[in-house]
Amino acid sequence: MKGKKCVILLSGGLDSATVAAVARNSGFDISAITFSYGQRHDIEIGSSRRIAEFFNITDHRIIQIPSDIFRSALTDRSINVPKNRESIDGTIPPTYVPARNILFLSYALAYAESISASDIFIGANCMDYSGYPDCRPEFFDAFQKMADAGTKAGIDGKPIRITAPLLKMKKSEIIKAGTALGVDYSMTISCYDPDRDGRSCGRCDSCRLRIRGFSEAGVSDPTVYQIKS
Amino acid sequence: MKGKKCVILLSGGLDSATVAAVARNSGFDISAITFSYGQRHDIEIGSSRRIAEFFNITDHRIIQIPSDIFRSALTDRSINVPKNRESIDGTIPPTYVPARNILFLSYALAYAESISASDIFIGANCMDYSGYPDCRPEFFDAFQKMADAGTKAGIDGKPIRITAPLLKMKKSEIIKAGTALGVDYSMTISCYDPDRDGRSCGRCDSCRLRIRGFSEAGVSDPTVYQIKS
Repeated sequence: MKGKKCVILLSGGLDSATVAAVARNSGFDISAITFSYGQRHDIEIGSSRRIAEFFNITDHRIIQIPSDIFRSALTDRSINVPKNRESIDGTIPPTYVPARNILFLSYALAYAESISASDIFIGANCMDYSGYPDCRPEFFDAFQKMADAGTKAGIDGKPIRITAPLLKMKKSEIIKAGTALGVDYSMTISCYDPDRDGRSCGRCDSCRLRIRGFSEAGVSDPTVYQIKS
Repeated sequence: MKGKKCVILLSGGLDSATVAAVARNSGFDISAITFSYGQRHDIEIGSSRRIAEFFNITDHRIIQIPSDIFRSALTDRSINVPKNRESIDGTIPPTYVPARNILFLSYALAYAESISASDIFIGANCMDYSGYPDCRPEFFDAFQKMADAGTKAGIDGKPIRITAPLLKMKKSEIIKAGTALGVDYSMTISCYDPDRDGRSCGRCDSCRLRIRGFSEAGVSDPTVYQIKS
């Protein structure tokens, strides 16, 4: 008997590892997609492999996207990653990657329809960090409608459901939920700008949200930082 | 002085060549994207290069997409391309490629936002051939709304406009319009299943629509066919 199938976007970060745990806990047979798009934190691809192995995900695809499609501080080393920003205040920072989640979800949709998966999971969340337009509920609602209109699955009345289960959770809540499901967060990396030894900077927005999340959750942070802010 | 910029999806077919002419005629500085996705008619990539050269498009990107993302008669040689179908009747045929236009437009959107292009053009049309869900006006409307919600450009009130200028034109009307704009259709190929010498089959849906289009337009068809249906 075949179980229900899903496609998850696995970045190698804390959120997508938690999503993998949620999907597995819900009984899904998981296919995972990770993207190599010239991100300066491409060390996360190694993390994604460890997470896939941890969850026995045998169908794990690493898809190459040419980095010069995107103009962003995450792909272009001539643009600095902001460190110790005064506030993480909801403005769109230079680490925004144009249409990234749109492109990633489109790959997931194509693959989900091709393998007859019913669900797509993405680890986006908008609570601690509302600066990215493609991490907001309005975006996901619009993407679902577009997917329903633009696929055979949607036309046939079997739309592929796109879920961001962490969308409205605080980082600390995500960490607590994942810890309860057995996620080993030492496999994951959040830093936008790690050093050559893979140590997190501790000062970019993503590190700071991670540090605060572990602290608020009362869970020991397994991350190796260059400096602790 | 810099002109207005657009990104066009250039497949190498008749429609996208016409779209390039329309965009050029509207005064756009054109960037073009072509996809190599394991399509059995990958000869169209050579056509896209000739079209780009014809229109002096210097920014022409060929992007690789792993073919096993898609399950379709166009990417999987174990599935036959239908020939001489009784009717081209609006049912979704096996040449449907899951979420293809969604993925292609997402790439165009990421690149357009990265280079500050205002417009994206795609050569889809739904009049002669309404079988593909991602060639319908409802789909393009939904994609536009999704793009507006999911990009910085959209949030900032400068949404990237996605236009399918041929959407409601018959194939014969497209050929007439392109001919008037000086398009040399001998550069283009429409066949889903050409032979090794690049000759069109003349029997797949795409060839039949092309043959009928030239006939109805009263324009000589420069295509080399294996057989003429």
